[in-house]
Parts: sequence; C-alpha cells; structure tokens
Amino acid sequence: MFEAAELGHRVDKQTYKEQLPALREALLLAQVELKEKAPFAVAVVIAGLDAAGKSETVHELLEWLDPRLVQTRSFDAPTEVERERPHMYRYWSVLPPRGTVGLLYGAWYDDAIERRFARDIDKAELDQLAEEAARFERMLVNEGALVLKFWFHLSANRQRERFKKLRKDPATRWRVSADERAHLKGYRRLTCAAERMLRQTHTAEAPWVIVEGTDANYRNLTVGQTLLHALRTRLDDQAPAHVGEAPPLESSIDGVEVLDKLDLGKSLSKTDYEDELLEWQGRLNLAMLQSRFRKHHSVVAVFEGNDAAGKGGAIRRVTSALDARQYQTVPVAAPSDEERAQPYLWRFWRHLPRRGELTIFDRSWYGRVLVERVEGFAREQDWMRAYGEIDDFETQLAAHGVLVVKFWLAIDQQTQLARFQEREATSWKNFKITADDWRNREKWADYASAVNDMVERTSTEIAPWTLVEANDKRYARVKVLKTLASAIERVL
Amino acid sequence: MFEAAELGHRVDKQTYKEQLPALREALLLAQVELKEKAPFAVAVVIAGLDAAGKSETVHELLEWLDPRLVQTRSFDAPTEVERERPHMYRYWSVLPPRGTVGLLYGAWYDDAIERRFARDIDKAELDQLAEEAARFERMLVNEGALVLKFWFHLSANRQRERFKKLRKDPATRWRVSADERAHLKGYRRLTCAAERMLRQTHTAEAPWVIVEGTDANYRNLTVGQTLLHALRTRLDDQAPAHVGEAPPLESSIDGVEVLDKLDLGKSLSKTDYEDELLEWQGRLNLAMLQSRFRKHHSVVAVFEGNDAAGKGGAIRRVTSALDARQYQTVPVAAPSDEERAQPYLWRFWRHLPRRGELTIFDRSWYGRVLVERVEGFAREQDWMRAYGEIDDFETQLAAHGVLVVKFWLAIDQQTQLARFQEREATSWKNFKITADDWRNREKWADYASAVNDMVERTSTEIAPWTLVEANDKRYARVKVLKTLASAIERVL
Repeated sequence: MFEAAELGHRVDKQTYKEQLPALREALLLAQVELKEKAPFAVAVVIAGLDAAGKSETVHELLEWLDPRLVQTRSFDAPTEVERERPHMYRYWSVLPPRGTVGLLYGAWYDDAIERRFARDIDKAELDQLAEEAARFERMLVNEGALVLKFWFHLSANRQRERFKKLRKDPATRWRVSADERAHLKGYRRLTCAAERMLRQTHTAEAPWVIVEGTDANYRNLTVGQTLLHALRTRLDDQAPAHVGEAPPLESSIDGVEVLDKLDLGKSLSKTDYEDELLEWQGRLNLAMLQSRFRKHHSVVAVFEGNDAAGKGGAIRRVTSALDARQYQTVPVAAPSDEERAQPYLWRFWRHLPRRGELTIFDRSWYGRVLVERVEGFAREQDWMRAYGEIDDFETQLAAHGVLVVKFWLAIDQQTQLARFQEREATSWKNFKITADDWRNREKWADYASAVNDMVERTSTEIAPWTLVEANDKRYARVKVLKTLASAIERVL
Repeated sequence: MFEAAELGHRVDKQTYKEQLPALREALLLAQVELKEKAPFAVAVVIAGLDAAGKSETVHELLEWLDPRLVQTRSFDAPTEVERERPHMYRYWSVLPPRGTVGLLYGAWYDDAIERRFARDIDKAELDQLAEEAARFERMLVNEGALVLKFWFHLSANRQRERFKKLRKDPATRWRVSADERAHLKGYRRLTCAAERMLRQTHTAEAPWVIVEGTDANYRNLTVGQTLLHALRTRLDDQAPAHVGEAPPLESSIDGVEVLDKLDLGKSLSKTDYEDELLEWQGRLNLAMLQSRFRKHHSVVAVFEGNDAAGKGGAIRRVTSALDARQYQTVPVAAPSDEERAQPYLWRFWRHLPRRGELTIFDRSWYGRVLVERVEGFAREQDWMRAYGEIDDFETQLAAHGVLVVKFWLAIDQQTQLARFQEREATSWKNFKITADDWRNREKWADYASAVNDMVERTSTEIAPWTLVEANDKRYARVKVLKTLASAIERVL
C-alpha cells in the first residue's frame, strides 16, 4: 500500500511557485463559500509516520487557509473525564461544526495503531477498531461531512536520515522524542500495523490518500490540491454522497406487533404500590452506591412513550431515590445551533454519564425514528440509517460498561383521552397540553407502527427495550424502578 | 443570623393544602413566561445543614415546576479537568442558560464552608472566597440573572433528632453519611463558618433567605413563595437591577496617552529576524516542555490590535514553534446561541487551557471595551462594568498559576492604509478586507481612546499588556515570541 510513497516524489521550486497563487486563492474562495453556506463539515485526518512532515504541512495549510475557520485538534493521553466514557467520546467532542475545517492529528487512528505496535491489542482487536472507525466515518459522510484522510509516509531510510538531521540541529532536537526512536527501530512492525488498519478503512466514502513525505513541495501541493478538489466537487455538486444501508421495513406477516401483546390492564393497589416503590427505590439507591458499580459502570436510561403516558412522573420517582450528585436529567428539546452544526448523535454524546452516574434522557435519540419519521422532519434515508447508527452508539456504550436501559411507556387511546381532558381541566397541568398533542393523537396508527419498528430493530441483547404497561401509573412506576434497579444489581 | 430559623416554624396541613394549587399554577405560569421571553436566567442556591430537608424540598419543587426547564446541579469532588482550571470553572460550566432555572446544591458555598470546617483554610481565606462569591453573584445579577439563595437551617437538637429517625429506618439509613455525623458533632463550628460566609455574601442584589427545615410544609411553602415572588417581580418589572460600579473615565490631564509613546519605527533586518525568530521559538518550545511548567502552569495569550496589524501572522509564528497538542487557537467570532444565553465571559471560560497548555485568543474578552464600546453594541453600563469583571477573571486565572499574556499590536494609519490596499490587490488576501475594515478605519480616534482606556485600566501586575510596535512585522513577531517565552521562563 505504501510502495508508491517511497519513490522519492519531488516538485521543484519553480513549479511550486507557479502553482501556489492559484491554489491559495481557490482554497480561500472555497472556504468562504463553505462558511457562508455552511452546508457541511470537513474532517481532515492527518496521520502517518514520524518526521514525515505532518506538522510542517499543517502549518503551511494554516498559512493558506483562513485559520479562523480551521480547527486543529490533536489527542494526548485521555483525561479522567474521557476515560470514563466510551473511547470515541473524545473524537465526537472535537468534530468540526458545519462550515468549518477540522485538521485532526492522528484522529481515531493513532491510538489504535500505537496500541497494536505496543502489543496492547491483538490483530482481531485492531480489526474491530478499524471496523468501528469505518462505521464512524460512514456516519459522518451520511451526515453530510467531507472526510479526507492523509497518511504521510517515508521509507525507513528516509526516516532515519530525517531524524539524524533533526537531532543534529539544537533548534529542532526537541522534536525527536523517545517514542519516535522506538518507532524507527520498529519501522516494519509499525508500518504493518498501520497498513492493516488503513486497508480496512480505505472505503469509497472516505478513502486514504498516501502522501510521500520526503519533499515538502510535493507534500504540500498534494494535500492542498486534494483538499481543494474535494471541496470544489462537494460545493459544486449539491447532493452529498449517501452511503446506502436502508433495508426495506418488513411488516409482520400475521399483523401482530409487539405493542399489541401488552396487557395494559395491569395495575397495582395503593398499598402494594407504596411498599414496592419504597423497596425498589431503596434497592436502586443501594445498588448505585456499590463500589463495583461506581468503578466500572454507569447507566443511561431512555424514557420514551405515548404523550401523557406518565414519563415525567416515572422519572421523578427514580430521581427522588437518588442523591443529586448521582444523576442528571436531560430533557430533549429543540437543538441549539451548536448541536445543529454537528451529526445527529452529537447532542446525546455530550451528556453521557461519568462512572457511577445515571443519565436520564427524557425523550432521546429515538426521536429520529419516532416523531421525526412520522412528522416527516427527517428524510427517509436519514431515519432509516438511524437504526444502524443507534445500534453502533449503544454497542459502544455497552462495551464500555454503560448499562443502557430503555423504556417505552404505553397507554391506550382511551386513557390518553382521559388524561388530556384532565390536563385541560387542572390549572397547573394546563401547560402540559398543547395543540400538538391533539394533532399527534390523530396519527396514533403511524406512531404505533413506528414504535413497533423501533422495538423490533433496536431491542438488542445489550440494550433491550422494556415495554411498560402504563394505563396504571402506579404499576408503571414500580416496573420502571424495578427494571432499573435489577439491571444494576445484575452487574454487581 | 440563624435564630429566627430555630423557632419551630410550622404550617398546618389544612393551610398547606389551601395554598398549594394557586402557588403551583402561578409558578408554572411564571415559568412559561420566563421560557417564552427568555429574558433572564434564574440561579437558585440550595445550601444549608444536613437533614434540613434540602433534597425533599427540591423534589417537591420539581413536582410543581415544569422539570424540563429546570436543571439540578450538584458538585462532587472536582475532576482532573476541573482541577486544572481556576476553582470557579466548574460553577461557570453549569450556569443555567437564560429562560431556565438552575437549582444549585451547595453552589460555590459548600466547598468553602467545608474547607473551613476541616481547617484546610483560615478565616482570611474564607473571607476571600466570600468576597469572590459576592463578586461573582454581582456579575450574574448585572448580566440579568435572578440569584436566589436559600440556607436550610436546623437547631442542633432538631438535627440530632432527624438523624436518629433517618438511621432507624432501613429505607433511609443510607442517607446518613459519615460526613454528616462529623457535622453534627461539630455543629457549632460548622454553623460559625457558615454564618461568617453568609454574612459577607448577604448582599442587596443576592440576599440570603434562611429557611427553618423542621417542618416540610413550612419549608416548601417558603421556598416556593419566595421563588414565585422574585420571578413575578422581575417578570413584571422589565428593568433588571443594575449594581453600580461605573466610575467615570478620566482622560489623561496632559493629553498624552500610552499609545502615543510607542516608537512605531522599530524594525528588524531579515537576517536578525531569522536568527531571533528561531532562537525564541526554540526557547518557547523548551520552556513549555519543562516539568515545572507542565505541572503548575498554563498560558492564556490574548491577541488584540488594529485591523491589519498582523495578529494572524504573529500567532502562526507562535504555533509553528509548538506541537499541536500544546496549544489551542480560539478565534473569537459571533457567539453561538448557547453562548448568548450565558453571561458574557462564559464563552471564554469554556476555552481555558489545561495544565501545560497554551490557549491563544485571536481577539478576546476585550472586545466588549473595544469594538462593542465604540460601535455601541454594548450599553455603557455593560462595557463600564466589564473592566472590573475582566480584572476578577484574570485575577482568578493568575491565582491558579495561569500566565496571562496580552498583546496589543499597534500600527499607524499610513501602514494600515498600505496593508489594506495590498490586501485588495492580492487575490488570496482579498478575503481579509471588508467594508467593515474601511468603516472601522474612519473611527480611528475612537478606537485609540478605547485602547488607551483599556490599557490603563486593565494592565495589572498579574496580567500586564504588552504594546507591540507592529509597523514592521518582523519586529512585532519577535517581540511577541520573546515576551511569551520570557513570561514562561520567569516561572521556571
């Protein structure tokens, strides 16, 4: 894969000087267009071997571009806050917003390659990280982003020469670190690990560009022109590449869906309720105090349900069992402009719990396959791919020890009607009922089929849906608490 | 201060039941109005003794209010990320946005009182924290926030009784922690520390309300009614209280200002420039690698200057000396809606560097006393109070070991004209020149006097301004690098 980047590519000074002005101007124009229309984000991965000129080329790019619209990001050892979240958290948190360019040193590659080089992980684990990276990039592309990946390469001999030169000069000696010397010694092993990673992430939507690092002119022009070409293509052609994965929905053959199977008549007497509520609140509290939980786990609880199904009341029964330091409630409302400038799931990633904590999402990322699907706020291709992206997201959470507990609170149409009417009649419940609620009610069947699809496609072993019979609020609240507490008790 | 809260205040069940519906309805109405107009943020401090019913009352409030517009925040031990920033960082990061209510357990009080109780700090240090808290709250109020502070109190006897009761019941036993038992034992010392803190922060703009915690009905009604009353007063009276502190600007008696004293003719030959640039880039790099710096310090570098003074070029000479992991550049542009919903300085707090890092602000919080003042974007009372708030901000940075290095790059009018014309003539510099630039140029004198005021009022010993003669770009770049490197070398 790297052979072509060991040929000693060069661009002479004269050619460089001739090409530069037009390239700079075109890049700036493209950048201004990108900023003004803000149609997509540009994520540029800058990876490769040491001393292959990565920083030099980035510094040159920053001379050419308007640096106020470029963010340079690099990744040091993860902080405590990052370690307590799934490993992709740190990459999500620095994604460039639409309209801007992010230059990401190493991005989600360096760490994986480095760990394989250090024999921390085996080949299978490297392959898994590669698969994850490829899926992440596919998501970015589907969200409209332009993903460009540059691998800066050098032959072993050239690398040795460059290190020598850097070390000789007192002004640059600091740039040759102990790590880098180890990399030179292990040149073959490192390039093997890198090649394995690159091959698996060399996709149609986000291909790698291998850049020979020997000659600065060649390197800079290659990166600059590739960037320009990709920018222009996307700016001129309004339709972003959509990467398929939208299998048609199959409806159930016998017409029986999961929701139909619920016995909404389930209920609990007041005294049973009070006893059970207290018991499960106590158990939830106790479970969250166990050191095994506090050290290795956290919980993400998703609350979805019909309007007026009692989500708020159920949530408050959970939180009143806990100390304020142990949980965070995230009501999902209209996204802020910072959130709108990012991929859909970004707004949820930013609220993930730390170890030992519980984050309650009052409505969630399932909005995309529920309200956004039914109301037509999301295009079909977008809500269709959401199933897969949600699965990736929850898989990463589970792999990191985050318990994902999802509730659908179900009521029937009559119960909803009664509650709507009660809300209208009670002064302090008035605010809870709007024209939207009545409108949604008319789409009962559409919502039901969206819910059935959702449960069928996203109830996984690692993140199952719990359907909660909620005609009786007491029954529902106890079932929620019991499910949550039991999920934690199971990992103790 | 607490006597009145040891009298055994009670509200009987009947009265409570009668008052509740009207209170709930009025609170919800106020909340809806607050959300729709989003005119201000509401920060509610919930502090006080253990077992005085803080959580119970908060849970009750959450039943009454629309919880989607309320954020509950509490503060555990600071994380690594928080410890690497000034201690107010964690409080800034959870401030409620305009239009919402933040219930802040302990807020910026618990930690101070607890540290005094544990004898970690002496009285003078407690007083300093109190002063800081009072100034912080004044800033919040001046930014339009409603700040309400509740101290939940109990006499020692009542506290003992409540602990006993909690411990007896297996369902509530977990709530009596070891810390709490220590607090009961040290009741007098704790209340003394608290009283000292409270007295000094009992200001006109953010007074304390002492709530006796014995009786739940009394406690809930007191908090609910106080909140309602404060909300209604502010919602009905559009003018927020402005807390003075705007001394008139005195112009220099002899008319000589700091900027006039600059010798803009200073310059550097090309060879001297290349030698010195390399030397100071090397020294900057070396200084930032020293373990003393990496463990105890970080740098905030502010770049301000006339249009076309060469800020961008100077910044790139700094960053090209560094590894991408060591610095972050923050170009200050139009605020996002999340930033607009917060106090002015919030958008800068969120970008503070970690230990060992450098954050470069390309334009900064001085925008308020420069462009916003001159163009009339900020009201006079707002840019006038900015001097004091900026001083508080920089003092907190310096106290935490953050080096604050501020540059004003100065050029004269002729040089600016020449550079504007060059930008218009050079294709890839075209984007750098806009109609705004020409307009600003006509206000040269206004900007000059704003700069003079700024330098005079905010050049402090801990965060001095460096005026950079920038007619010659080479001279300016070297002076910037030299100043920055020397500032770090001084603390090694």
